[in-house]
Amino acid sequence: MPKHKLPKHNVAFIGLGIMGAPMAMNLLRAGFSLRVYNRTREKARDLVTAGASQYDSPAEAARAADVIVTMVTDTPDVRAVVFGDDGALATARRGALIVDMSTIRPDATRRFAAQAAERGVAWLDAPVSGGDVGAKNATLTIMVGGDPADFERARPLFDTLGKRVTLLGPVGSGQAVKACNQILCAVNLLGVCEALALAESQDIDREKLLSSLGAGAGGSWALENLGPKLVQADFAPGFMIDLLLKDLGIVADCGRGESLPLPAAALAEQLFRTASALGHGRLGTQAVALAYRALGAPRRD
Amino acid sequence: MPKHKLPKHNVAFIGLGIMGAPMAMNLLRAGFSLRVYNRTREKARDLVTAGASQYDSPAEAARAADVIVTMVTDTPDVRAVVFGDDGALATARRGALIVDMSTIRPDATRRFAAQAAERGVAWLDAPVSGGDVGAKNATLTIMVGGDPADFERARPLFDTLGKRVTLLGPVGSGQAVKACNQILCAVNLLGVCEALALAESQDIDREKLLSSLGAGAGGSWALENLGPKLVQADFAPGFMIDLLLKDLGIVADCGRGESLPLPAAALAEQLFRTASALGHGRLGTQAVALAYRALGAPRRD
Repeated sequence: MPKHKLPKHNVAFIGLGIMGAPMAMNLLRAGFSLRVYNRTREKARDLVTAGASQYDSPAEAARAADVIVTMVTDTPDVRAVVFGDDGALATARRGALIVDMSTIRPDATRRFAAQAAERGVAWLDAPVSGGDVGAKNATLTIMVGGDPADFERARPLFDTLGKRVTLLGPVGSGQAVKACNQILCAVNLLGVCEALALAESQDIDREKLLSSLGAGAGGSWALENLGPKLVQADFAPGFMIDLLLKDLGIVADCGRGESLPLPAAALAEQLFRTASALGHGRLGTQAVALAYRALGAPRRD
Repeated sequence: MPKHKLPKHNVAFIGLGIMGAPMAMNLLRAGFSLRVYNRTREKARDLVTAGASQYDSPAEAARAADVIVTMVTDTPDVRAVVFGDDGALATARRGALIVDMSTIRPDATRRFAAQAAERGVAWLDAPVSGGDVGAKNATLTIMVGGDPADFERARPLFDTLGKRVTLLGPVGSGQAVKACNQILCAVNLLGVCEALALAESQDIDREKLLSSLGAGAGGSWALENLGPKLVQADFAPGFMIDLLLKDLGIVADCGRGESLPLPAAALAEQLFRTASALGHGRLGTQAVALAYRALGAPRRD
């Protein structure tokens, strides 16, 4: 983890789930002063032991913070923890900076940022990819939208949490690029499932296939990282199907809003929804292979 | 190019197209004795200048060869140059080895190998990926199916032509794995097209997107190599849409034969066919983006 000479902000961290908790811990270990809030109080226990201050509402956590990080599930959750009656904006001082690291809608992000600006509070959208492993190891990819000066203010924090940190444009750009990333993740994974299913049907040793194709023109992060899990029928998350489904809903909304045809993303959404409808929503995304089986793909294991 | 101490075979090389010609040149430069045949005689000119012997039929080229390499377009072409009246099998000596590096149907491959075996001629299927650049630079991925002893006989040749050379199983396995590879290439490219289209619709700088996402969970060979071409609207092949379409037809046949649902591969076939129907069949595969435009995707360049 990089050690900064820059001043450590007084950070409020809202949302201590599978991603938020390890991210908050990395900030604490890097020397940030940390005020935390989570709906389920117990999830803050390790952080409090390590020196964080726990509060009973986003508003209490945000009071006196320089930077307010939100890491919650979806657009309505961000609305609630920021704009709700005891939301962060109720107490945030003028000049504070909200860094929303959740994955939510780009259009809602632009509205939220405008509303915050009316109260003198700046906004960066900074969704991440890299999963719980990236959150723990501080190797997240961070896709940032917002004002360059605000980006520089948040840099010590970003550099503590991730490896590839990119300012992609004005507010909303981080969420837009995250949506693009989720298209890639979902569609590439369909390719992996279908390639492995075809291989199985042709009696090919799928591990040999992975080593033959991994570094070639068919290669992808999905093939390299989720291919071996599929071969081992290991469906543990990783990143859960229901969360990717939420993201594919954002993708679909973006496409609808721009009259943009996204047929492969739409097919992916249907297949991940099939897997979820079959009861696999809390498994890793690679469990979309179970949707293929439900479609009648031969099961040989 | 690796220099072998192993004996250099007397090689007949049949099919000197965009892939075959540079592959044959690499064999010649590595010291193989080379007998060549191509339907269009002129395509052998550089090879003849460099020391290859040219013949008027596959049969003449194959006479006295230890190894007969075929590098032609499709299943019927392999049938013609091997089993036709003046095909290689008309003159091939017992104990010769046919190495079919074309991309054709796995089931046809198994039949061809059985027919050749009746004549005392062995068969390896060894389709490649890596495109004309890989052919020129001897960096092809070679996916081999066949008998291990035959694989060892052909190793000096494979090592001269490519980098990742894998014996994947019995005859037909190379073609089966190549079909899997083509699913990955085609489906990953749909993801890239849709991610870039969404980015464009959200006014994202697509070059920044590529550098932000390239090494992350959405990463792929297609994103890294074809993404920049798409941003520059560079549709030059690379690998032509009509050839990928031929391969996706093989994929579809395999799926049909095994009652295997391959919905993403089927969607890809439809979109690549749309691009071809629009007259773009001889452009690079990344020109499938033009099919998306025909579907109504906004055009902003």
